[in-house]
Amino acid sequence: MSDSYTIDHRLSAADTNIHSAWDNSLEPALTIDPGEVVRFDCRDALDGQLDIDSTAEDLANASFDPVHPLTGPVYVEGVEPGDVLEIELLDFQHKGWGYTGFMPGEMGLGLLPEDFEEAGLHIWDLDGDVGQFVDGIEIPLDPFPGTIGVAPAAEGAHDTLPPRDVGGNMDVKHMTEGSTVYLPVEVEGGLFSTGDCHAAQGDGEVCVTGIECPMFVTARIDVRKDMDIHQPQLETTGPFTPTGQDEPMYGTTGISDDLMDATKKAVRHMIDHLEAERGLTRGEAYILCSAIVDLKVSEVVDAPNWIVTAYLPESIFPEET
Amino acid sequence: MSDSYTIDHRLSAADTNIHSAWDNSLEPALTIDPGEVVRFDCRDALDGQLDIDSTAEDLANASFDPVHPLTGPVYVEGVEPGDVLEIELLDFQHKGWGYTGFMPGEMGLGLLPEDFEEAGLHIWDLDGDVGQFVDGIEIPLDPFPGTIGVAPAAEGAHDTLPPRDVGGNMDVKHMTEGSTVYLPVEVEGGLFSTGDCHAAQGDGEVCVTGIECPMFVTARIDVRKDMDIHQPQLETTGPFTPTGQDEPMYGTTGISDDLMDATKKAVRHMIDHLEAERGLTRGEAYILCSAIVDLKVSEVVDAPNWIVTAYLPESIFPEET
Repeated sequence: MSDSYTIDHRLSAADTNIHSAWDNSLEPALTIDPGEVVRFDCRDALDGQLDIDSTAEDLANASFDPVHPLTGPVYVEGVEPGDVLEIELLDFQHKGWGYTGFMPGEMGLGLLPEDFEEAGLHIWDLDGDVGQFVDGIEIPLDPFPGTIGVAPAAEGAHDTLPPRDVGGNMDVKHMTEGSTVYLPVEVEGGLFSTGDCHAAQGDGEVCVTGIECPMFVTARIDVRKDMDIHQPQLETTGPFTPTGQDEPMYGTTGISDDLMDATKKAVRHMIDHLEAERGLTRGEAYILCSAIVDLKVSEVVDAPNWIVTAYLPESIFPEET
Repeated sequence: MSDSYTIDHRLSAADTNIHSAWDNSLEPALTIDPGEVVRFDCRDALDGQLDIDSTAEDLANASFDPVHPLTGPVYVEGVEPGDVLEIELLDFQHKGWGYTGFMPGEMGLGLLPEDFEEAGLHIWDLDGDVGQFVDGIEIPLDPFPGTIGVAPAAEGAHDTLPPRDVGGNMDVKHMTEGSTVYLPVEVEGGLFSTGDCHAAQGDGEVCVTGIECPMFVTARIDVRKDMDIHQPQLETTGPFTPTGQDEPMYGTTGISDDLMDATKKAVRHMIDHLEAERGLTRGEAYILCSAIVDLKVSEVVDAPNWIVTAYLPESIFPEET
């Protein structure tokens, strides 16, 4: 997948290349031919409001107006509605730090805002391919763009928080280096943008933050006229576990007649486990879930109760001495 | 995990050891001390109504009255409500064949009954650790008990289809050999039963059948007085991919403001993919999804739209020659 390539275009994170709503009337920041490679400089999701000295209070006081600052849009010559953009993800480079946090109460973001009275924040030192958490816990880094998409056909400015048929804020953690993402095109030129990068994330992104960080994203952007898809698809080699191979996991089931409630139960049970067996605070446990715990749909057919199971990799903990 | 062990008790699949409802008034089929090993002979979910010559019509005409024939219950001495049963899964032996099928329309079982007008069935030859599908597709076998649980505190006979706080029909595919399952106990002695075994299954079990088969299950049953859990938990080493390591997967997203609808979309998109790119019929594709495609909760926080992604391992297809 990662054959040699040359970068054809660079898009800086200057204000002229940044937009924070999906809008098909935006002027392209760049026009390219199909098959060209673009290196995007991407701001973090909160657009620089936090730094390595920030506290949970800073997160609680952050403005959500600039979310998400995306780099683009890129107009691809010859691309028409009904085509598919093929995005080959060639390279990611973080900038040495990131953050994962949660906000309780009235903001209402994340899976369990009702469980916490105060915000929580962890600033990660990102050292190459590892992120440092508390108590010697180390998270492998597998960067991907939280937001990757094209402009919707519907007119006007659209919030970047929800993903749509054209992609956007998908937070699919397997869109890693070497992966290819397929996006259904709704407007001429596609109008591709990306940003909101994560150095790592568990399936689910339960705090509504992965390891958020500014990042360089290099991608080859091509067109497929032969595909017929209605929502994004991808080819990936994972990783599907932190070590890239089978390893011990601790699993907590969430059983309920509602899939969202089952998801909440699975995560609450994992937070219980991390508190009881690993000595983390509930806030630390919630952040760890968002960064590394994977949610799987175990069954959606044994009516009327469904199961979502949360899986915690045990390789992230320091070996007992 | 799989240290040497000796089998302390054997429970045959004779009628006296089989029950098809959860009911804490059932006489134990066996009483054991904590830590003893039991080998359970388990019938298939449809209790022998199908065999290797069966057709989709036979499945459509099957009675659901005997579902699920479970082997047990086992009374464990000294076990009290509030304890946790620790089930170490030591060994599984299938009996050389199995089936995966779906039923449309009024039965309403499975994720997509509305998409199919006729039943579908695949009979699998199970050769050691591989199952044979159509077109040279081979599925690795990773057996587990679809149903594993203890009796609920609530009086009376309870349907075995839905899982509950005490476990039951969980269909958690990672309860494989070497795994340990933790079950919250609600009645004296626990009253443990298992059955409804699967030789393989994708996360989701979308057809409501994995690779269903009769099987021997050997497990060490112990008690934990120190754990406090409210729904089942587990320790497992997977496998998390068919090959046990990172490998190419094709992913289809399902994006919707309802998690169940997102799940349906992801699976429909995967069926589209298998039809267009792999030449399967839609019924074959649905069966393959139930047997090997894994559903992951990609994000449950980017309001109002959630994403479930279906992952197809490409290692199951024969190499192109």
